[in-house]
Amino acid sequence: MHTHILPANLPRWSEKFGYGDFIHLEHHRQGFARMMQGDRFFREINENCWHPELRIEEYAKFGTQVQVVCTIPVMFSYWARPHDCLEVSKFLNDDLAELCVKYPKNYVALATVPMQDTDLAIQELERCKAIGLKGIQIGSNINDLNLSEDRFFPIFEACEKLNLAVMVHPWNMMGSANMTKYWLPWLVGMPAETSRAACSLIFSGVLERLPKLRVNLSHASGSFLATIGRVEHGFNCRPDLVAIDNPINPRDYLGRFWVDSITHDARMLEYVLEMVGSKRVSLGSDYPFPLGDLEIGKYIEDMNLPEDTVKDIFYRSTLEWLDMKEEDFL
Amino acid sequence: MHTHILPANLPRWSEKFGYGDFIHLEHHRQGFARMMQGDRFFREINENCWHPELRIEEYAKFGTQVQVVCTIPVMFSYWARPHDCLEVSKFLNDDLAELCVKYPKNYVALATVPMQDTDLAIQELERCKAIGLKGIQIGSNINDLNLSEDRFFPIFEACEKLNLAVMVHPWNMMGSANMTKYWLPWLVGMPAETSRAACSLIFSGVLERLPKLRVNLSHASGSFLATIGRVEHGFNCRPDLVAIDNPINPRDYLGRFWVDSITHDARMLEYVLEMVGSKRVSLGSDYPFPLGDLEIGKYIEDMNLPEDTVKDIFYRSTLEWLDMKEEDFL
Repeated sequence: MHTHILPANLPRWSEKFGYGDFIHLEHHRQGFARMMQGDRFFREINENCWHPELRIEEYAKFGTQVQVVCTIPVMFSYWARPHDCLEVSKFLNDDLAELCVKYPKNYVALATVPMQDTDLAIQELERCKAIGLKGIQIGSNINDLNLSEDRFFPIFEACEKLNLAVMVHPWNMMGSANMTKYWLPWLVGMPAETSRAACSLIFSGVLERLPKLRVNLSHASGSFLATIGRVEHGFNCRPDLVAIDNPINPRDYLGRFWVDSITHDARMLEYVLEMVGSKRVSLGSDYPFPLGDLEIGKYIEDMNLPEDTVKDIFYRSTLEWLDMKEEDFL
Repeated sequence: MHTHILPANLPRWSEKFGYGDFIHLEHHRQGFARMMQGDRFFREINENCWHPELRIEEYAKFGTQVQVVCTIPVMFSYWARPHDCLEVSKFLNDDLAELCVKYPKNYVALATVPMQDTDLAIQELERCKAIGLKGIQIGSNINDLNLSEDRFFPIFEACEKLNLAVMVHPWNMMGSANMTKYWLPWLVGMPAETSRAACSLIFSGVLERLPKLRVNLSHASGSFLATIGRVEHGFNCRPDLVAIDNPINPRDYLGRFWVDSITHDARMLEYVLEMVGSKRVSLGSDYPFPLGDLEIGKYIEDMNLPEDTVKDIFYRSTLEWLDMKEEDFL
């Protein structure tokens, strides 16, 4: 779980809608494309960002058959007018659905929805369910609003009802404007973002009120699990600030949500396993981006973990999170 | 190490300087005071924030004799006009020096300096050295400038030359404006701030160029050690972004800097000990604030660590960081 993909071509939404820096692709040389944010260069990507067979081949090199795919967070377009974001989302989701129909043994997909408009988001959720997507990817914040906001609750409620899994991905990173050097928004801001999302989902009571909602937190939950002692202590010592919407200790949610395995560090992964249990740690890669675990779990194989633990991480946890079965891919 | 203290009374700097929300104290009832930021209520504090004998007694309850004290970060006043901040700093530093003269077996102090003005900061550093302070406490950023900025290098250089220890404390937390609920600036922003500072000191080459500079990172380095896998992977996969000022792998600095023990979690402390070694983990409390470890290391005693490890954490690491000797307190 946790890989990113794009359609090979993107419409010129900025031109069509007449505003905004929507992303489009410039296929400037064989095997590569430039992601352009309006007229600004955003990032160069390799064809493994959009080429389904190439991705399957690259994954097979590491003994991995199935990819849970979702869009790149910059595509969320939460900042856009809701109906325009819906159009972007539909385009991306239809592409994902098509991929899963064509390669059902290799791809499972998570949708993107216009989180800035609760009704439209739910409408698209229902459509995505019907076309075979298994969950959604959402940002760690929605235009700087936290996931604890009441307006998002019906979306989570719909996910529970529709049996759609939720993956939280960091984006729109706090502090970015003042951390322009050394890639700090990615190295410092992203882990904080996922902790912000985890705290927001717990302290607001989303996880408490929706016991069947299955949430997976990217990058091993960012800094959340590593700071659970501090978070719990804050909850205990200042309930007037922290326990205002949910009286349950945040530590009680360990084992309730999933996290991916992307720690890039065996020792930290051991800690994560002890915190949430192997049934809640799912192999993630962040493929095909350089900050990902591009050897797809090789360091986990090298850890000499019990066979059952490895099986949990490599597929069982993800299957449970998606409510799918091993047989679906045989 | 890592406790906070204030003088019992603070001048009305806002009135004297004619601008700004400098902190003053309102002793509104016996045993308590309101910290006021201009006319705004900031926080109520207990007399253990300023009462030296009471602090010694409270510490003694947990078998602890010596406190390394420093001001509360809101007192930094980095936003003020440099000479005004110098005056505030001098007032606080003189109070700290007096405390250490009066209770030499119980207190060691870290100064605060006007980081916004390199020359004045160094001038005050030299004065603080002369009056017996053993180091400085600095913010994780200085008015949103990172510690990697060239302007701060001469200050670190002076600390090395003067044999003054440096403690980095999170403050002015990224994302605060959008995380007003659930105390998230303290629970999410602070750990990110310390990682931001650690990355800035490493990637800019401050630690590399000043091999004798002794830096201690608050709250067990915040999220830095927990995300070292990600930080290292970022350094390796995007050297064009990360390795631009220092070619050394960030993991090579584990064991080079100190961290305090404030994890509130035995398992996380084990991880920290494995990462940096017990000689680099120093007992911290954040006393007297509620988010601190107010049982001063009790959970560490319960961990059944080897005696040598406990001695390292409880005093040897801090003595080495401060370049002091056990005999100084006997």
